[in-house]
Amino acid sequence: MSFERVAIIGLGLLGGSIGLAVQDRLPGVATTGWDRDPATRARAAERGLVGTVCETGAEAVAQADLVIFCVPVGAIGEVAGELASAIPAGAVISDVGSSKQSVAEALAKALPGHTVIPAHPVAGTERSGPDAGFASLFLGRWCIVTPPEGADAAKVAALSAFWEGLGAKVELMDAQHHDLVLAVTSHLPHLIAYTIVGTASDLEGVTQSEVIKYSAGGFRDFTRIAASDPTMWRDVFLTNKDAVLEMLQRFSEDLTALQRAIRWGDGDTLFDLFTRTRAIRRSIIAEGQDDARPDFGRSDHAG
Amino acid sequence: MSFERVAIIGLGLLGGSIGLAVQDRLPGVATTGWDRDPATRARAAERGLVGTVCETGAEAVAQADLVIFCVPVGAIGEVAGELASAIPAGAVISDVGSSKQSVAEALAKALPGHTVIPAHPVAGTERSGPDAGFASLFLGRWCIVTPPEGADAAKVAALSAFWEGLGAKVELMDAQHHDLVLAVTSHLPHLIAYTIVGTASDLEGVTQSEVIKYSAGGFRDFTRIAASDPTMWRDVFLTNKDAVLEMLQRFSEDLTALQRAIRWGDGDTLFDLFTRTRAIRRSIIAEGQDDARPDFGRSDHAG
Repeated sequence: MSFERVAIIGLGLLGGSIGLAVQDRLPGVATTGWDRDPATRARAAERGLVGTVCETGAEAVAQADLVIFCVPVGAIGEVAGELASAIPAGAVISDVGSSKQSVAEALAKALPGHTVIPAHPVAGTERSGPDAGFASLFLGRWCIVTPPEGADAAKVAALSAFWEGLGAKVELMDAQHHDLVLAVTSHLPHLIAYTIVGTASDLEGVTQSEVIKYSAGGFRDFTRIAASDPTMWRDVFLTNKDAVLEMLQRFSEDLTALQRAIRWGDGDTLFDLFTRTRAIRRSIIAEGQDDARPDFGRSDHAG
Repeated sequence: MSFERVAIIGLGLLGGSIGLAVQDRLPGVATTGWDRDPATRARAAERGLVGTVCETGAEAVAQADLVIFCVPVGAIGEVAGELASAIPAGAVISDVGSSKQSVAEALAKALPGHTVIPAHPVAGTERSGPDAGFASLFLGRWCIVTPPEGADAAKVAALSAFWEGLGAKVELMDAQHHDLVLAVTSHLPHLIAYTIVGTASDLEGVTQSEVIKYSAGGFRDFTRIAASDPTMWRDVFLTNKDAVLEMLQRFSEDLTALQRAIRWGDGDTLFDLFTRTRAIRRSIIAEGQDDARPDFGRSDHAG
């Protein structure tokens, strides 16, 4: 089986990128879309993010064989509940949320009797809204699919094939393990970035103008992530609380150890860690998950 | 006055970039250079990082009217001491180190009677060594000059003009204030990045392969900074200990507050911070200190 009519609920960065990627790479597949915000619907229609932008969610899902919720994870249950009676019985339900156990529960509760197969494409930028999406967002990125126990293998395969059709690499994973892995590769980094940008904004001895002027020393990197969508990220932290708190605890312990090394002038401990951390970046570049150019290629652009 | 013969001691990312930038933008200025490592000297000669790569530091500085130390801050005092008898009496002594109080002290002690005017161009990439430098590194970046009390105004002006000649914008600042500002805009971000990359490498529940595969969720950004030169950064933390520890204390307090908000499900606190932090990035882009393209432009390259 493969999907022929895909409904996208929520037309921001992720929803818009899926719509554009389907039209670009899977031309036989029809796309409908809806967003709660009328201004977003209007802009989505202008940009042609999906084949048909519908005036109601019920219209968008009425003929769909795949419904993908692309709204903040805290809102998925409510939005799905509103559309429950309109979604065809045979449609596969999926999403793009960054936490998967809570989404699986929310969708199962809102749409009893439907086949729910959550998914999470590990891709994005710091932008959000209907102007942010682009067709190549998923190229070479991983999409983690977290089928519940006993899920229909043919439908899981169809969803995996759909994501591969958009250029992604697919990995199947248990939802709980997903939440632990993403807590360290995504959620903790965002939390740290938001924190440090907040800390730098609230100093009495250093002005905000100085923080901005001298940000090329490293700080500016963190501001990119800390410019991400506030609603989305609030929801991620609230819905993946346990794993985030566990990773945060480990991070704080490690930071305290470094703090102690600095206080006591223990250069060897610092040097050893700073040497180890170089290897991981080399592996990330070798795996095609980041730009090999120094400074993310920013300097090429500036020069 | 302006400088005519510049000696660059240390031919890594910064030293090499200065050499290339002088040849590119200040063609009337002669450059000599030396590095303790013979392989670096050989590569510097191949790349033409400076006009003349010398076999000894004493040769490199012998005719100089400006000597710039581009070695890790912990080594500056020793290297300067070794060259003390070879440096002409009238030469201005400067550097590019990331901590300024300790460098000012080390240079004053190693080179009594010389005019020492420390400086710090806030620019760099995660690369190091003689292959890392490029002529446009300083374009549009700030160079902070920290003249000691009573410094000769003409010499300070000449050093400022030199950096402006390389494309930088110059700001004069007290060394102590520099160390506080850079602790937040550069040193703390590096420490945090090194820590989180270390934390992610040492988990028993998540493999290193998973961390690498799913790094596009945010983690990969931190690995760039955490690939920076270990010796340089060890020295920065040891020589700017007090300011780094102060900023770290504030960061830890702020992180604890967010941890508490997550634990108690306080979404409003999270949302408020995440909204505030967006504004700073907009200012950094408006000030020309980062790339306006989403994802640092990486997606353009990938797509």
